[in-house]
Amino acid sequence: MTEEKFTAAELAERVGGQVFGDGNVQVHGVAQLETAGPGEIAYLEDAKFYSTAETSNAACLIVPVGAAVRSNCRIEVKQPKLAFAQIARLLHPQPVRPPSVDSSARISTGADIDLTVFVGPHVSVGEGARISAGTRIEAGVIIGENVTIGKDCILHPNVVLYDGVSLGDRVVLHAGACIGADGFGYVRDDMGYHKFPQLGTVVIEDDVEIGAHTCVDRAALGRTRIGRGSKLDNLIHVGHNCDIGERVVIAAQTGISGSVTIEDDCVIGGQVGFGDHITVQSGAVIGSKAGVLPGKIVRPGVWWGIPIQPLDKFKRLNAQVNRLPEMQAQLKELTRQVALLELAIKKPQL
Amino acid sequence: MTEEKFTAAELAERVGGQVFGDGNVQVHGVAQLETAGPGEIAYLEDAKFYSTAETSNAACLIVPVGAAVRSNCRIEVKQPKLAFAQIARLLHPQPVRPPSVDSSARISTGADIDLTVFVGPHVSVGEGARISAGTRIEAGVIIGENVTIGKDCILHPNVVLYDGVSLGDRVVLHAGACIGADGFGYVRDDMGYHKFPQLGTVVIEDDVEIGAHTCVDRAALGRTRIGRGSKLDNLIHVGHNCDIGERVVIAAQTGISGSVTIEDDCVIGGQVGFGDHITVQSGAVIGSKAGVLPGKIVRPGVWWGIPIQPLDKFKRLNAQVNRLPEMQAQLKELTRQVALLELAIKKPQL
Amino acid sequence: MTEEKFTAAELAERVGGQVFGDGNVQVHGVAQLETAGPGEIAYLEDAKFYSTAETSNAACLIVPVGAAVRSNCRIEVKQPKLAFAQIARLLHPQPVRPPSVDSSARISTGADIDLTVFVGPHVSVGEGARISAGTRIEAGVIIGENVTIGKDCILHPNVVLYDGVSLGDRVVLHAGACIGADGFGYVRDDMGYHKFPQLGTVVIEDDVEIGAHTCVDRAALGRTRIGRGSKLDNLIHVGHNCDIGERVVIAAQTGISGSVTIEDDCVIGGQVGFGDHITVQSGAVIGSKAGVLPGKIVRPGVWWGIPIQPLDKFKRLNAQVNRLPEMQAQLKELTRQVALLELAIKKPQL
Repeated sequence: MTEEKFTAAELAERVGGQVFGDGNVQVHGVAQLETAGPGEIAYLEDAKFYSTAETSNAACLIVPVGAAVRSNCRIEVKQPKLAFAQIARLLHPQPVRPPSVDSSARISTGADIDLTVFVGPHVSVGEGARISAGTRIEAGVIIGENVTIGKDCILHPNVVLYDGVSLGDRVVLHAGACIGADGFGYVRDDMGYHKFPQLGTVVIEDDVEIGAHTCVDRAALGRTRIGRGSKLDNLIHVGHNCDIGERVVIAAQTGISGSVTIEDDCVIGGQVGFGDHITVQSGAVIGSKAGVLPGKIVRPGVWWGIPIQPLDKFKRLNAQVNRLPEMQAQLKELTRQVALLELAIKKPQL
Repeated sequence: MTEEKFTAAELAERVGGQVFGDGNVQVHGVAQLETAGPGEIAYLEDAKFYSTAETSNAACLIVPVGAAVRSNCRIEVKQPKLAFAQIARLLHPQPVRPPSVDSSARISTGADIDLTVFVGPHVSVGEGARISAGTRIEAGVIIGENVTIGKDCILHPNVVLYDGVSLGDRVVLHAGACIGADGFGYVRDDMGYHKFPQLGTVVIEDDVEIGAHTCVDRAALGRTRIGRGSKLDNLIHVGHNCDIGERVVIAAQTGISGSVTIEDDCVIGGQVGFGDHITVQSGAVIGSKAGVLPGKIVRPGVWWGIPIQPLDKFKRLNAQVNRLPEMQAQLKELTRQVALLELAIKKPQL
Repeated sequence: MTEEKFTAAELAERVGGQVFGDGNVQVHGVAQLETAGPGEIAYLEDAKFYSTAETSNAACLIVPVGAAVRSNCRIEVKQPKLAFAQIARLLHPQPVRPPSVDSSARISTGADIDLTVFVGPHVSVGEGARISAGTRIEAGVIIGENVTIGKDCILHPNVVLYDGVSLGDRVVLHAGACIGADGFGYVRDDMGYHKFPQLGTVVIEDDVEIGAHTCVDRAALGRTRIGRGSKLDNLIHVGHNCDIGERVVIAAQTGISGSVTIEDDCVIGGQVGFGDHITVQSGAVIGSKAGVLPGKIVRPGVWWGIPIQPLDKFKRLNAQVNRLPEMQAQLKELTRQVALLELAIKKPQL
């Protein structure tokens, strides 16, 4: 973790904030509010942390506009967490890899690699691959034939890109991410399963980040797409021919079957399962562990459960299930009362 | 994606179909019905696509026997999708890797590799390993000691085969598939967990295909088996001592605990969880996200839910749970009526 | 699988057991009770296996104290399964890799590797990394900068350790385990998602074993920890800033969101999902496929379901749900009876 030094006033300027107190204090690192010490900057977004903030040893605090927290120095901004993230990047910039190709890397003669690219040990690059300026290819990455990689990407160790896959600019793939393996498609006859052709490709657009060991399968025909600015966590499965829109966030271990469309700005929890041919409309939020049946159209709103229901309904039904023992008891009591009534009626009313 | 050229008549002959219309039309690629253009062939299986088919620009259509779709050229076959898959293989054959061993590969002196094998960059092959004719070992694959690999297999990048594992013929392992890691077995005492021996092996039979990052653990003692013609999707976990039969299909992210038997021709959805010592009988179908309790015997039929139930029962119970608010209202109304009746009875009946 | 030879008497001494019968019988391998032959040793823990045991061809049986199973030779111990595991280690010791560094490995000049370490082919070790005595680094492992690895660890093929990660002694990481990838944290604004800093690290303590393709993310700030003696199965996700205690066992495909604490001696099933900021108190047991809501405190006891409930309650509710059709029928019958009663009351009672 590298460190740069700035004054609080300089940092405030960079994030469009206003500094109060000693703007000349030196800051060299970010930290959590509870543990920040001299030379460190922390942030808070919520009034409930004001008292913690006032006893903090941080050199400077990033706070919401108008939050007059007592502190030696504070920066007021609209979005403290976002400013903190920006400042973290200034104070702890990504280590830069000098452009170089490790002598152990195997680069096909027909590959076209920009001179500013870093290629680590034991990398392999296939025929016809093109890698643009500023991209970092870490150790053990395997790049198939005719792969296209944009500018300023980071491919962490052991990433695998199958033939023909394409990445935009500033794409980050974490260790072991696997892009372009065959989709899971077979045709059954009496003899068994015959492979359905998996001849399409995968397109990953600009500013996508994909977690460790996440798998995005190639399309049978056509392409699988991950749209601009989308973020996928670890160990996710994206099936063939899926179309994931822009700014979609998907948490770890979610599985998406073939031909699912997830439109822009959806938020998908962890361990969610999607059957095939689903459309999730823009703005929908699906809670962790939900299950979505094949062919379903998921409208905007918050969804939960297996199969998914609107969150409100899910909560109500869940509460009702919890009340089942009580309902059972009520039923029993009613049955007893009705039996007594029947008895009473059969006897004369005297 | 390589391309070959055939006439429609030649293709019809190869798939045992009958050609109608211009059998001399040249075909060089497969495509989807909606997007197929000149020189391309598409298929349809269902009458609902007839109208789309009749406006298609495809050079030729593969249709069910008797489906007199208007088209410049059509091939009638019993199973259009299967014929399409076969034709795709003819038109777009897998690129052939010339037999060679990359100079960066580390081959132990005692390994026995057929002269027709392709070995990519940064591969490592342990002592006593045997690799048969026509097999393709892509970059970064790691093959342990005494591993046996059959004919015409494809091991995609970064596959790991632990010591002693054995693969049949025509096995395809996608990137990062991990075969033969230790099973998850420990014995607890006051001090903590002690490793239970994981001394067995894994046997993968002919024509098995395994998805990216799927893990098949070695047996504690004996062997874990994946039977002939079975197909496993991405990110699946198969525990130690499992016995998966022939032509079993398992979708992504399913987890199978130790000592589970899945008999021939079962179909298992995605994200299913199996406890240990389960037997799934031949022909059973288990829906996605289902959970099967340890020790269970799953009979043929369609199963669903956590814990699994016959699909019919699952649907009925699910409907009933959805009706709970209504039941609750009914209960309330009955309680009110019974109270009124009690009141009425206590009063004289006039 | 290597083999050593011992007499039954020698083995009994090593595990603190008492030998009955022919203590001089030679034993060279472990086996299952049902298949054990001459020269092999098996174990049983339960009286229900006595009859199987008495027809076994095993050279020697490990049995509970006082279990006078008829056999040519038996060793009585308190914990037969544990003794069996210990004996397996004696008879089949892990193959020792001679200290060496494969010539294809790329070792940074500033890395400090003990002379007794084994480094396999295509390994890469970053600047400032330290690797202690007796550790085995298998083929394709990638070790970032300033990584610390303790004594007698085993890193199986293709393990990835990001910069700065630290492992204790005797840690075992299976193929493809990925330690220290960025946590999944972003800040949203109108433009999209901005990366929240992931500047912390991961600490894996002594005697931890981690399964194939399991991912443990680095902390945003601070550290993610896996405590001493804990065992994680395959394909698990551990989010940033998690604190997993000592002797915790987690089965395959479980997903743990950020900032979750799991205290010592917990047992977590497979495919469990944890929201963020959960605390699981020491001794809690969570069943497979359970879902734990964010922020929850899970007390000691056995938990099950989505969302989790005490196992007893879960079973009761489950039974009740299964009884819903019956309740529905009861409700219908009551409604009919009440209607009849109303009718009866409206008519004069004679």
